[in-house]
Amino acid sequence: VLEKVTENCKLTEFVGTAIGNTIGLVIANVDSELHEKMGLDKKYRSIGIFGGRTGAGPQIMAADEAVKATNTEVVAIELPRDTEGGAGHGSLIIFGAEEVSDARRAVEVALKDLNRTMGDVYVNSAGHLEFQYTARASYAIQKAFNAPVGQAFGLLVGAPAAIGVLLCDTAVKAAEIEVISYLSPSTTSHTNESILAFSGDSGAVRQALIAAREVGLQLLSALGGPCKSLTQPYI
Amino acid sequence: VLEKVTENCKLTEFVGTAIGNTIGLVIANVDSELHEKMGLDKKYRSIGIFGGRTGAGPQIMAADEAVKATNTEVVAIELPRDTEGGAGHGSLIIFGAEEVSDARRAVEVALKDLNRTMGDVYVNSAGHLEFQYTARASYAIQKAFNAPVGQAFGLLVGAPAAIGVLLCDTAVKAAEIEVISYLSPSTTSHTNESILAFSGDSGAVRQALIAAREVGLQLLSALGGPCKSLTQPYI
Amino acid sequence: VLEKVTENCKLTEFVGTAIGNTIGLVIANVDSELHEKMGLDKKYRSIGIFGGRTGAGPQIMAADEAVKATNTEVVAIELPRDTEGGAGHGSLIIFGAEEVSDARRAVEVALKDLNRTMGDVYVNSAGHLEFQYTARASYAIQKAFNAPVGQAFGLLVGAPAAIGVLLCDTAVKAAEIEVISYLSPSTTSHTNESILAFSGDSGAVRQALIAAREVGLQLLSALGGPCKSLTQPYI
Repeated sequence: VLEKVTENCKLTEFVGTAIGNTIGLVIANVDSELHEKMGLDKKYRSIGIFGGRTGAGPQIMAADEAVKATNTEVVAIELPRDTEGGAGHGSLIIFGAEEVSDARRAVEVALKDLNRTMGDVYVNSAGHLEFQYTARASYAIQKAFNAPVGQAFGLLVGAPAAIGVLLCDTAVKAAEIEVISYLSPSTTSHTNESILAFSGDSGAVRQALIAAREVGLQLLSALGGPCKSLTQPYI
Repeated sequence: VLEKVTENCKLTEFVGTAIGNTIGLVIANVDSELHEKMGLDKKYRSIGIFGGRTGAGPQIMAADEAVKATNTEVVAIELPRDTEGGAGHGSLIIFGAEEVSDARRAVEVALKDLNRTMGDVYVNSAGHLEFQYTARASYAIQKAFNAPVGQAFGLLVGAPAAIGVLLCDTAVKAAEIEVISYLSPSTTSHTNESILAFSGDSGAVRQALIAAREVGLQLLSALGGPCKSLTQPYI
Repeated sequence: VLEKVTENCKLTEFVGTAIGNTIGLVIANVDSELHEKMGLDKKYRSIGIFGGRTGAGPQIMAADEAVKATNTEVVAIELPRDTEGGAGHGSLIIFGAEEVSDARRAVEVALKDLNRTMGDVYVNSAGHLEFQYTARASYAIQKAFNAPVGQAFGLLVGAPAAIGVLLCDTAVKAAEIEVISYLSPSTTSHTNESILAFSGDSGAVRQALIAAREVGLQLLSALGGPCKSLTQPYI
């Protein structure tokens, strides 16, 4: 799972690829019948398409940065059960824009930022851990997790789900955070994950994540041996 | 994923195997309690069972040919999330028949036709593409996709789903087709696919498929390198 | 997929690991907000956590033995779509206890028993078969399958689901059993399995399982070559 820079696709709709078998595309003017079948907001004829086989959290966090940086909106987030045989999700995120140049820019920002947001994803043969942090959530995170815009936001994922349960408990005990949602296999796309989404003071959010990460790395290592960051930790 | 000809199973219920870890079986007289629990139509005591780990579209198309060629009905189509770690579905298709010989014949036809219907399935490590065409849809396709019987039918699948979205747009712009349904991860069995089912004039259906295939092969190659047909393209 | 004895995790919450990337943990005093979000019964502040990547039936059967042997209750069973790229489920099982020592003991019993309950799980590259038997079902089996407590219970699983359908028919024809439930891809977590849960006289339950096992091994071998027990058969 390495970053790929693909320059050899000549389609005008192609933007690029990134870690996690993630691809970025644009459509300048979505066919009106398809537009309706997709249930998109009518005000956006241009869309950016951003999705991968491995990872939902990393793509959502990267899309959140893209939304902050561009004149676009996240109009759809869908979470397949995937991770290429692993325990988690894949992702399909659609940006809506009035101009295709805005959609393209959003996809470019998201593709580029994905290397960062994969940094606190830790993997071994037994499962994975994921930790995400932002000092200021924007509209992609709000859409995905119903998190308050403008506040610090944290996300933790533990797979298999048994590990995730303990990480959730660790996080809420480590700092004064506000739990937005607890997700488990019956409330995800049948992933083998337990997930906590939370907001709060930025220091508290970080503290909760760091405490959970410390516990998670011990547990996942005990189950499946050394586990390492997919890129470079950022939290 | 190669075709296997297995002659070494002596069970009378065994019919054969085919590509995609697909197996074909018959039951001459389904136990009445199980029959009821399975929710099958009471008029059929004999069933044919046809399903695989990889592929739903190919098995549905092959079952459609089997229904055309035999005195059977497709009474159930179920779509697990599978593809053996890939991005798509598996399949479980049940033929109902009054005579077990009819059920067996349907399964034989479907097993044999599967090699053809896997022909426009293209795979690499990043995902898969699938294109299916028939000049005249029958009752299996109607049951699976609510397609009009007797008309030309096209199916396209792109995985990861981000690629599929663009293929759907390409197809509807390439020819005058009638979209039956657009499916995405939230409306499939959580696969990482976007799917378009459509009907129309046979020339238009083929044109839409060929246009989407051309785009799909470029995109999937850009993401994961060369991708090739599982058998021999037929469209 | 071998049993792992991991003694190197120093967390007090860690109990151990077992076959199928299964882990066992305890929380002495679940955070009250998380407790509520998890929907747990308020009378249990201590929980045992027991879950794996591969296997739901084996973990449920092992949990049933744990419940019989300890002062605990199974308060949640969730079934992700998993098996690490295979055709079946993973598992997340929560024991509730008034004392953490009880929760720990339940997890220990379950981890230890898992080697036995993986014994009639047979795997090859094409799929898997699973057979489970107990002379006396307890509350974990009741919660998972709505089976009558105190009676003999049998469970059979065939994957791909096409094989499972025939095994279900074989079992109900082989002995006088009472079918509790028939599950297929549309009623599981989108697994590629057909599943039969049944009760009855202990001799009949065993007879049904043995008949289905004999057929299943022939079919799965015909599809994917030799398939073998993950540990040692116990039925």
